Amino acid sequence: MRHAVILAGGGGTRLWPASRRAHPKQLLALAGSDALVTTVAKLGGEIATNVVIVTAADQAAATRKVAPGVTLIEEPSGRNTAAAIGLAAAILVARDPDAVLAVLPADQHVTDRAGMIRALGLAMTAAEATNAIATIGIAPTRAETGFGYLELAGPAAVDTVVPVVRFVEKPDLATAERYVGSGRYLWNAGIFCARAQRLLDELRTHLPATADAVIAIAADPSSAERRYAELQSISIDHAVMEKAANVVTVPASVGWDDIGSWAALPAVRGHDAAGNTIVGDAIILDGTGNIVMTDGTLVTAVGVSDLVIVKSGDAILVIPKSRAQDVRSIIEVLRGTTYL
Amino acid sequence: MRHAVILAGGGGTRLWPASRRAHPKQLLALAGSDALVTTVAKLGGEIATNVVIVTAADQAAATRKVAPGVTLIEEPSGRNTAAAIGLAAAILVARDPDAVLAVLPADQHVTDRAGMIRALGLAMTAAEATNAIATIGIAPTRAETGFGYLELAGPAAVDTVVPVVRFVEKPDLATAERYVGSGRYLWNAGIFCARAQRLLDELRTHLPATADAVIAIAADPSSAERRYAELQSISIDHAVMEKAANVVTVPASVGWDDIGSWAALPAVRGHDAAGNTIVGDAIILDGTGNIVMTDGTLVTAVGVSDLVIVKSGDAILVIPKSRAQDVRSIIEVLRGTTYL
Repeated sequence: MRHAVILAGGGGTRLWPASRRAHPKQLLALAGSDALVTTVAKLGGEIATNVVIVTAADQAAATRKVAPGVTLIEEPSGRNTAAAIGLAAAILVARDPDAVLAVLPADQHVTDRAGMIRALGLAMTAAEATNAIATIGIAPTRAETGFGYLELAGPAAVDTVVPVVRFVEKPDLATAERYVGSGRYLWNAGIFCARAQRLLDELRTHLPATADAVIAIAADPSSAERRYAELQSISIDHAVMEKAANVVTVPASVGWDDIGSWAALPAVRGHDAAGNTIVGDAIILDGTGNIVMTDGTLVTAVGVSDLVIVKSGDAILVIPKSRAQDVRSIIEVLRGTTYL
Repeated sequence: MRHAVILAGGGGTRLWPASRRAHPKQLLALAGSDALVTTVAKLGGEIATNVVIVTAADQAAATRKVAPGVTLIEEPSGRNTAAAIGLAAAILVARDPDAVLAVLPADQHVTDRAGMIRALGLAMTAAEATNAIATIGIAPTRAETGFGYLELAGPAAVDTVVPVVRFVEKPDLATAERYVGSGRYLWNAGIFCARAQRLLDELRTHLPATADAVIAIAADPSSAERRYAELQSISIDHAVMEKAANVVTVPASVGWDDIGSWAALPAVRGHDAAGNTIVGDAIILDGTGNIVMTDGTLVTAVGVSDLVIVKSGDAILVIPKSRAQDVRSIIEVLRGTTYL
């Protein structure tokens, strides 16, 4: 049976201050009127018989509110994607030994839903038929340094299934430009399909303690908190993808974007005639390329461009769009305060 | 008798959003724990027997709160400094024909109070002894384009009384640099001493309708609202100073600064080790020369420099320090809203 596994457990710190521990980014209505997690869950419902959301235990109530009726898998603590996906695979395979998973991070946006559903269908079929790990490879639309890339042997058409030569980490700008120019590199969107058993086998090979733990938790949920806390915090890419054989991709050009940082908001929400993306009440004079999000307080700006200005609750953030990832340095300073 | 006349009636729009109609800038505690109007009133108390504050009628209650016990002269509406000073002169001369006034705008800051009191004493004496209009000429510390200048025949020492050759308007940067380099130009701080009767005589010559109106209002306060509304809105500099004979100045180097715009805040409040001026809770990483004022909401910024960031009540302002005067363009857009 096909299962969609929505990963919604991240801390969402890159969208602080709009994203807080109690209201993480996946639950924000960044993409429009619907909370994203709902949107992704709906997408999951079109490609799979069963949809589950993996979320942090302390975010479960908030997640349930935006996605009522969806099964939740609660992580006792955050241990990155290898553990989260392993846990989902172990729980699902225990109920359905033939389970095939489509793993979908919640903090993403797709404009061409039909195209994404088609690509996911191909990936699902590849996972079922050849036991591949079948990723979705997004045709890059810019030399993005914030994503990892999938290297192919040569350019490939959309809606085909081709081998991945190599997973490459986030490149510098010159490298990213070379990647995009070559036509042989696709964005790694963190979306893939695989049999649950294949994923557990890979974890047993590359991350055996995690494999043992998630299988034990699936058999005895009461041990989750104790076992999970000890797991290595590592991404599925580092733990499995970069090492596994028979990894394929379905190239897709579907208006996908990560909304993991403020810089991505224009791709999701568009911009006004002056080139500014505004969510909430704002007046910008003599400035372009700004991203403003405010929860009621009027934001005014004169003569500034390419700035992110966010007001949410008890905090304001001002940061150049090009440094949007550096909100993490503010998070470090705020560690232990109620501002997170 | 010597009277200090504190001008506190301005709309204070250049310090929006901290300064609003109901809480204009002169009443803000920008300079420290004391409201400025109180500070200036105290200064007035040291140089004069009587202190009056000229303020807008709709700001009288707020002004009385920060300067209890000081006599208020209420303007029915804002009609710029020629009318405000004329009104004070007419009211004071009616009670005290020998009244000598020291006119002090409230939105100013002085670090060397003793030096300012000494300069004002010399100016008072010049006004009494020679019927001069005796200004305080501030030795410039930068090529400021936001102030008018007083032109002298040649460089002059502090604590002397020298003729003013000419009042000059706000210069462009190249002109300001030339002024400052020459040693012959002083900042026009809007501070001056003169006999009340001399000021009324000048108004009768240069602005006769205003002279008539303020004298009539002094005799019949009930006519104030009707008469005042019709007066020309013009500054005392344009109406009188630029045309009057026997205008002198006392050069002073007393750490004076106008705090009529956000860019002046560092001169008043200093800055931290990173070069940022912060009033309220803020975290600035990898940035310098910023001016942040917030009324409770945490302001965070990464990688921005020389920006003004203000949060006050229901509004936020972000503007480069070099364009701080352009907050007026926001005010224009907000005209007629409750944000002012």
